[in-house]
Amino acid sequence: MATTPPTRSPELRKDPVTNQWVIFSPARAKRPSDFKSKSPENPNNNSSSCPFCIGNEHQCAPEIFRVPPDPNWKLRVIENLYPALSRKLDHPNGQNDDSSSELSGLGWVVAGFGFHDVVIETPVHSVQLSDLDPSEIGDVLIAYKRRIEQIKQFDSIKYIQVFKNHGASAGASMSHSHSQMLSLPIVPPSVSTRLNSMKEHFNRTGKCSLCQVQSKDLLINETSRFFSIAPYASSFPFEIWIIPRDHSSHFDELDNKKAVDLGGLLKLIVKKMALQLNNPPFNFMIHTSPIQVTDSELPYSHWFLQIIPQLTGVGGFELGSGCYINPVFPDDAAKILRELNVP
Amino acid sequence: MATTPPTRSPELRKDPVTNQWVIFSPARAKRPSDFKSKSPENPNNNSSSCPFCIGNEHQCAPEIFRVPPDPNWKLRVIENLYPALSRKLDHPNGQNDDSSSELSGLGWVVAGFGFHDVVIETPVHSVQLSDLDPSEIGDVLIAYKRRIEQIKQFDSIKYIQVFKNHGASAGASMSHSHSQMLSLPIVPPSVSTRLNSMKEHFNRTGKCSLCQVQSKDLLINETSRFFSIAPYASSFPFEIWIIPRDHSSHFDELDNKKAVDLGGLLKLIVKKMALQLNNPPFNFMIHTSPIQVTDSELPYSHWFLQIIPQLTGVGGFELGSGCYINPVFPDDAAKILRELNVP
Ligand SMILES: Nc1ncnc2c1ncn2[C@@H]1O[C@H](COP(=O)(O)OP(=O)(O)O[C@H]2O[C@H](CO)[C@@H](O)[C@H](O)[C@H]2O)[C@@H](O)[C@H]1O
Ligand SMILES: Nc1ncnc2c1ncn2[C@@H]1O[C@H](COP(=O)(O)OP(=O)(O)O[C@H]2O[C@H](CO)[C@@H](O)[C@H](O)[C@H]2O)[C@@H](O)[C@H]1O
Repeated sequence: MATTPPTRSPELRKDPVTNQWVIFSPARAKRPSDFKSKSPENPNNNSSSCPFCIGNEHQCAPEIFRVPPDPNWKLRVIENLYPALSRKLDHPNGQNDDSSSELSGLGWVVAGFGFHDVVIETPVHSVQLSDLDPSEIGDVLIAYKRRIEQIKQFDSIKYIQVFKNHGASAGASMSHSHSQMLSLPIVPPSVSTRLNSMKEHFNRTGKCSLCQVQSKDLLINETSRFFSIAPYASSFPFEIWIIPRDHSSHFDELDNKKAVDLGGLLKLIVKKMALQLNNPPFNFMIHTSPIQVTDSELPYSHWFLQIIPQLTGVGGFELGSGCYINPVFPDDAAKILRELNVP
Repeated sequence: MATTPPTRSPELRKDPVTNQWVIFSPARAKRPSDFKSKSPENPNNNSSSCPFCIGNEHQCAPEIFRVPPDPNWKLRVIENLYPALSRKLDHPNGQNDDSSSELSGLGWVVAGFGFHDVVIETPVHSVQLSDLDPSEIGDVLIAYKRRIEQIKQFDSIKYIQVFKNHGASAGASMSHSHSQMLSLPIVPPSVSTRLNSMKEHFNRTGKCSLCQVQSKDLLINETSRFFSIAPYASSFPFEIWIIPRDHSSHFDELDNKKAVDLGGLLKLIVKKMALQLNNPPFNFMIHTSPIQVTDSELPYSHWFLQIIPQLTGVGGFELGSGCYINPVFPDDAAKILRELNVP
């Protein structure tokens, strides 16, 4: 991590998209530690006991769909067996925020109606997302889109968070390659903050902050339809965003061609990250717009995919302030990843 | 963690203080894991090599003050040797937010001026905060106050985040009992969000949300000057808040008597947490008001201390949405902690 010249002074930066402050602090990279390093956590390599492996479908919660629709599937979308929200609760269709109630002074409450799905990205236990072909990764992305289109029918769902946990320190409890989709009856706070921040930027400058964000120093790789950058105010070392070139507010506007293009870039970026950072645990998140809002209502919103390798922990400062401390400046991270050759 | 009756339905709640949504989801507690549990990380137990131990003062960054001011100190406030912000940068005294600059479309930037201090809570390596007497813990709290009063002199410091990391999974890199104070040239986002949320509640109801928050079901323990609760929309299982009974916007209004009272309650709560949850790593954070704002300007603000035991990890959902998933309802956590006897 000692990639940043130690002479660079600390700096605070605020991102115009997320509205988050971050402290860039190269000096922090040199802290010693009193604690022995964590022993690597060994995942379950036993495919006979893994419910996500082909042949073990009966060990899973109900299937929503599979691709292709036959016994020899390449990916499956299933219900989460331990869902955070319940698809069985009574949900007032057409519910709006007014129907949530405030208990006297204690806070607001909404019934936990929602969908929590798992996308099994491959039938084979040992295959990781970045082992797939660009078009196969494209199929996973199109499966997200197809599921979003189904869930859109429920008026009470306001936002769908698509995310992936890879590796135990990134939160994964299952080692078989998968991602998740959690469909919420609220618009989460970070989404409202992002939309407000992008709107404010748009009103002030007449431009979308993500259309404007491309900078030579922050660029990692690009394709005809997408580009990847280390964002100007990265909260995490080697944080990466993949952004569609076309101004588009919703992820589910993705078509098959773009999906393959994005699949190729995602594959390259994950491979570079693995090579440079010793195969780190990571998360990715798709940041899109609330589902009941149309494109024309959102001239300032632009979806993107955020990748965070898990290299540093957090502590009381981050929990308390909501600011992160990042020892690596994004232009240093971008240069390293840009210049890296993938064999 | 299987303390919540499995039949309770999931629920989303929003906290009127933090303005955060949380998903309460008892079903999540039953997830299996593919990864072997982490081997406990063994801290450095060797006091000869610990710079925070008495006798090793020369291994530390410069001292700010000690209590009492003689070789036989009981606590020390020192500079952090690897500071996130620099006290050496030129800082425009009286700087205001307008002096931060926006690079074209990329974001805002502020020079990394600030103070990053460490509070060594005891001279002895093996002593933990909860081993101290209430009055000794009170001395630590009064040391925070004294340091805040010094830093208040710098107009360019807007907020001071006091926090403690205990245990490696709570982020601690040093095992010797200590806390930290990071003095920032900005008001962090979570502080602005909290103040706006409390102000909105005050304008709507005429009441301070923390003065109103005491509920029989959420109460854990109380003293004449403070009470502790499991907050209504706890983001984390067994999260605890300690709140002064008096409506007070700034932590540094604490006097010696209140400090001893708070010291006693903090000791009890940390002991209960250790007993019930098998000595978990934890963080505490003091949530106060920006330093250049006076009490009378903030009729809606009320400081408190938040304690978070580290029991669950986070994943892509939390990183993406800013919402947490909590398997334990706060009334269940409060009941367990309230009824627990500390020998
Ligand atoms: N037989 C089966 N059929 C169907 N589904 C099955 C199943 N067996 C297990 N599952 C589900 O598969 C999912 C696997 O998900 P991940 O490994 O990405 O992380 P998990 O959701 O456990 O928690 C991580 O991600 C969440 C959300 O970010 C964080 O709250 C949490 O702290 C972090 O550990 C789990 O949600 C589990 O409920
Ligand atoms: N000889 C010496 N003299 C003076 N100071 C010394 C010193 N040796 C070490 N230090 C400082 O002592 C501090 C000990 O702090 P903690 O153990 O609470 O966690 P740390 O700040 O390392 O990081 C945790 O907390 C921060 C803030 O929440 C997170 O960013 C991070 O990810 C998490 O691991 C360190 O900040 C270190 O720089």
